[in-house]
Amino acid sequence: MSQAFVVNANRSKYARLKPVSIDSVKLTDSFWANRIKLMGEVTLPLQYQIMEETGRLDNFRIAAGKVSGEFSGFFFNDTDVYKWIEAVSYFLATNRDEKLDQLVDKVIEEVKDAQDPDGYLDTYFTFSRKQDRWTNLKDMHELYCAGHLFQAAIAHHRATGKTSLLDIAIRFADHITRVFGPDKKEGVPGHPEVEMALVELYRETNDQKYLDLAKFFIDERGKGLIGGSSYHIDHKPFRELEEIVGHAVRSLYLNSGATDLYMEIGDKALGNALERLWDNLVTKKMYVTGAAGARHEGESFGDPYELPNETAYAETCAAIANFMWNHRMLLTSGEGRFADLMELALYNGILPGISIDGKEYFYVNPLADRGGHRRQRWFACACCPPNVARTITSLPGYMYSVSPEGIWVNLYASNVSEFDVNGSAVAIEEKTDYPWEGVVEFKIDADAAFSLFLRKPEWSREFSLNVNGEKIKPVLEKGYMVINRKWQKGDTVTLDLDMKPELWESHPSVKDNAGRVAIRKGPVVYCLEAEDNSGINVWDIEIPKDVKLVEEYKNMLGGIMVIKGKGWVNDPSSWEKLYLPPEEADRLRNELEFTAIPYYAWANRTPGPMEVWIKRK
Amino acid sequence: MSQAFVVNANRSKYARLKPVSIDSVKLTDSFWANRIKLMGEVTLPLQYQIMEETGRLDNFRIAAGKVSGEFSGFFFNDTDVYKWIEAVSYFLATNRDEKLDQLVDKVIEEVKDAQDPDGYLDTYFTFSRKQDRWTNLKDMHELYCAGHLFQAAIAHHRATGKTSLLDIAIRFADHITRVFGPDKKEGVPGHPEVEMALVELYRETNDQKYLDLAKFFIDERGKGLIGGSSYHIDHKPFRELEEIVGHAVRSLYLNSGATDLYMEIGDKALGNALERLWDNLVTKKMYVTGAAGARHEGESFGDPYELPNETAYAETCAAIANFMWNHRMLLTSGEGRFADLMELALYNGILPGISIDGKEYFYVNPLADRGGHRRQRWFACACCPPNVARTITSLPGYMYSVSPEGIWVNLYASNVSEFDVNGSAVAIEEKTDYPWEGVVEFKIDADAAFSLFLRKPEWSREFSLNVNGEKIKPVLEKGYMVINRKWQKGDTVTLDLDMKPELWESHPSVKDNAGRVAIRKGPVVYCLEAEDNSGINVWDIEIPKDVKLVEEYKNMLGGIMVIKGKGWVNDPSSWEKLYLPPEEADRLRNELEFTAIPYYAWANRTPGPMEVWIKRK
Repeated sequence: MSQAFVVNANRSKYARLKPVSIDSVKLTDSFWANRIKLMGEVTLPLQYQIMEETGRLDNFRIAAGKVSGEFSGFFFNDTDVYKWIEAVSYFLATNRDEKLDQLVDKVIEEVKDAQDPDGYLDTYFTFSRKQDRWTNLKDMHELYCAGHLFQAAIAHHRATGKTSLLDIAIRFADHITRVFGPDKKEGVPGHPEVEMALVELYRETNDQKYLDLAKFFIDERGKGLIGGSSYHIDHKPFRELEEIVGHAVRSLYLNSGATDLYMEIGDKALGNALERLWDNLVTKKMYVTGAAGARHEGESFGDPYELPNETAYAETCAAIANFMWNHRMLLTSGEGRFADLMELALYNGILPGISIDGKEYFYVNPLADRGGHRRQRWFACACCPPNVARTITSLPGYMYSVSPEGIWVNLYASNVSEFDVNGSAVAIEEKTDYPWEGVVEFKIDADAAFSLFLRKPEWSREFSLNVNGEKIKPVLEKGYMVINRKWQKGDTVTLDLDMKPELWESHPSVKDNAGRVAIRKGPVVYCLEAEDNSGINVWDIEIPKDVKLVEEYKNMLGGIMVIKGKGWVNDPSSWEKLYLPPEEADRLRNELEFTAIPYYAWANRTPGPMEVWIKRK
Repeated sequence: MSQAFVVNANRSKYARLKPVSIDSVKLTDSFWANRIKLMGEVTLPLQYQIMEETGRLDNFRIAAGKVSGEFSGFFFNDTDVYKWIEAVSYFLATNRDEKLDQLVDKVIEEVKDAQDPDGYLDTYFTFSRKQDRWTNLKDMHELYCAGHLFQAAIAHHRATGKTSLLDIAIRFADHITRVFGPDKKEGVPGHPEVEMALVELYRETNDQKYLDLAKFFIDERGKGLIGGSSYHIDHKPFRELEEIVGHAVRSLYLNSGATDLYMEIGDKALGNALERLWDNLVTKKMYVTGAAGARHEGESFGDPYELPNETAYAETCAAIANFMWNHRMLLTSGEGRFADLMELALYNGILPGISIDGKEYFYVNPLADRGGHRRQRWFACACCPPNVARTITSLPGYMYSVSPEGIWVNLYASNVSEFDVNGSAVAIEEKTDYPWEGVVEFKIDADAAFSLFLRKPEWSREFSLNVNGEKIKPVLEKGYMVINRKWQKGDTVTLDLDMKPELWESHPSVKDNAGRVAIRKGPVVYCLEAEDNSGINVWDIEIPKDVKLVEEYKNMLGGIMVIKGKGWVNDPSSWEKLYLPPEEADRLRNELEFTAIPYYAWANRTPGPMEVWIKRK
């Protein structure tokens, strides 16, 4: 089960881990807890207001015949409403908020009224367009919309116990299962999404037909039913895919759905394809931020090592999809490499997608900019804003996983949590200043023998681990430190991860990063922004490979650790010649103490040049 | 007078220097003298043979009605014949070769027979195409062909004293002056060339009308007569040009012609435009090899700092044009910066255009290649092969210049020479192992007071100078060391230029050279080729900025100094990850002693990757 809830323990028998219930984890940190609070107080109410302003809710009212008018906006705009419901539901799972609770109920009423008696629900395909239903799966996103409805409905049910939206979802899902399947209508969703939603609906309802339909949709790929393009990932049967290609969000949503399917049916060919695609992504096509999708054209993956910085597409939704997919891969395997990527994408691929004040969004996330790229209040195609919101409000559910072996700590942040491990209650109190400090303390309240799996992030070269004050050398198992013992009330575990800032360099085939380095501290990727560097064009900054990086906490941009060091400004305007011997070129360079900030925090102040991959002196 | 002959000392009164007669300098070195010999023995006879094979000479015979058939090849193919005549003429000026002398006479006969009674001469515009003469100056190159005829004729006359071709040229030139000019036909040559040829014809004949026509053609630019494109350098009047743009060869030929005109009429606005264009070229648009023209599209200059290596166009003819223009700029000013560029373009932009065996040519000169780019025996558009040949055979005339102040040594190579300085005979014997060693010895035989101007190459950071064994500190005047004295028979001058190999780095705005360095020794730019580096992909080689470069003379590729040093191989296939901390990345690097060869010598052995701009470790 991939959504962050414990629901039916009999499901997902090919998954090693199970997610924990979102409400079993209470974040108490200043990083994520504050951001979740911001979602409830600012972002979600504002998104509701914009959805009203932009006709997204009116589309439901028009479809229901309650108000007159024409459908407006993109034909997939229903999904923004669904993702908003999903985001609010996660928020409500861990926070009391009467106003939002009532607001979401009101919105669900609008959705309900727009549903046809036969269960069909898509506000675009109403009135004269009714006849076009299910006629163009390649382009028209009906199943994509359905998928978001199902995910919202499951989230709402799990968060509130109410079945109002789940009933609607099931009616539509049943309609779809009546239309599509072996011996019924053939079809492949042009924009994947419904696959993972159907598997989750199966987990939620125990109704096998949803799982079967998810499998059907995945098995139908590669037959050319939607044109056979690699853009649509329809050029080959899924199990034969070798290279991650096509529209980045579609590709990663599809992989997420296929991983969900794999957790249920354990099909080796599916698992092998997923491993190949993952390997191809992370070794050839992923930005250092965990973002994906190099090209604006087709919002797509590029060729291997095609990772331009200034023209990166790196859609926020693609980083979210990468996060979701890696969460599912983690559940199948219990391997830390997947949680590493979740963390990377979370801090650096997803979080930049929303402004510090929670009111503006990036759709496209370049890794270098001259100062013109700014977050927007909304987009005509507004997939990213509610997608960021649902990801942030669901975060408590991703911190841990459980398995019969014990408790897995995937992501680090202060929290108090309660889990059931093989029938025993376990309470955990975690304290850390992550991601700024690598010390993480756990207080365990339990009376049971089990393993505590602590993720050993790949970036942490050294670490130390203490149990009740005694240093131990834990077993390291595929990226997790395993502490197996009989736990007692008051047991403490102290993990000290090496979180020194350091440089990264890039694979020599990534042309755009040649001769450049990136700065990173723990999971956080840094960038240079003009505002912290005397307003100069940070593209002119060079740093030596042996730079001494110094950290300093600053109470700005929501509280960040900045990283400083001695670099050089190589100002093109000071060069009178095209070519110079190094000694002469060095005389044109001016020393500078540079200041780097987390990449996620860029473009929240005065516009100016920004750069992640910095020239090496 | 820009061609390498002393002819009419009354001309070019706005030039500070005069060229010396080509036959006053006898090269005795092993570098250029051997190459000139190769031209006479191999290249020029072979080019004649290919011109017969490809119908270039038959076009003249057909035009004359001596043989039947159709004009074949490009409409400007006559120029290959003219440039060949020019190259042979220069060769004959310094070498006895009865066979070539007779051959060139034979070819001139063919040319003569193809000329119309009215003086018109272009083998393409004959028979049914006669009616199209002078109807499309923008595209059809009639004046370009005429220009090459004039240059060949002047060279042939100066070298042999014969007027056979000069008479033909004058007849055609007179025809052209009857057609074009103020109150006659307006027009701008689509491909500049005739401008410099007309000025030279004026110098040769003393006939003012040729100079006037050259001025007319330059003044007519920018009026839109040939479409007003920047490709044709017709977007602005010449005197208003700020940026060097358009087709690189056309642009640089035009500048050469305008500089010739400037030497005669001293028009400040012309001189200022030339200075602006020169500055723009060398500070923003010139390859480190002295080559010009970044783009294949339009064979043109790119934007400022657009200097890609693998996709460089860098046509051999454009480097020749750069050499010719800088020679003219040198004559106007006596400033060493122009001779520096002549030398740079000669060794690194022009010389790569011909194979070591003198039989194959590059048209396009990339600065990085994967092993597929090879010299060809000939081209359909074969402008480069005879252009390289005429440049090499004319080299003796570029070594020195003279002025009333004395003798100017522009380029260094062993030679014995005789000049007239203000009526006094001066004999010089120069000995050097240039370009491999920086020591240059002169033995002077004179009985006169004058200045000896020795170019102080920009690349030579340190130098020492001895006169008759005594160290002197010469006056440095705009790139020339000035030794003024009363010279006597037996005086010796020993110049010791610092010619240590060193690195070059590139202006920070040249994106394609970011994080890269080039190796250079004196005027010679080096490259890495697979054959000297264990066959590895030299694109994977990295060298540290503080590399110790060691020289070693090798008896290969015509005799070259190779440069060795300790570098690293960063093999992409050894990288399993996309991003690594520098220490881990360093573990993937393997030490290597690299060997670099002169760039001009590349692609003469087994095909393999080549690179000029090498990654910095």
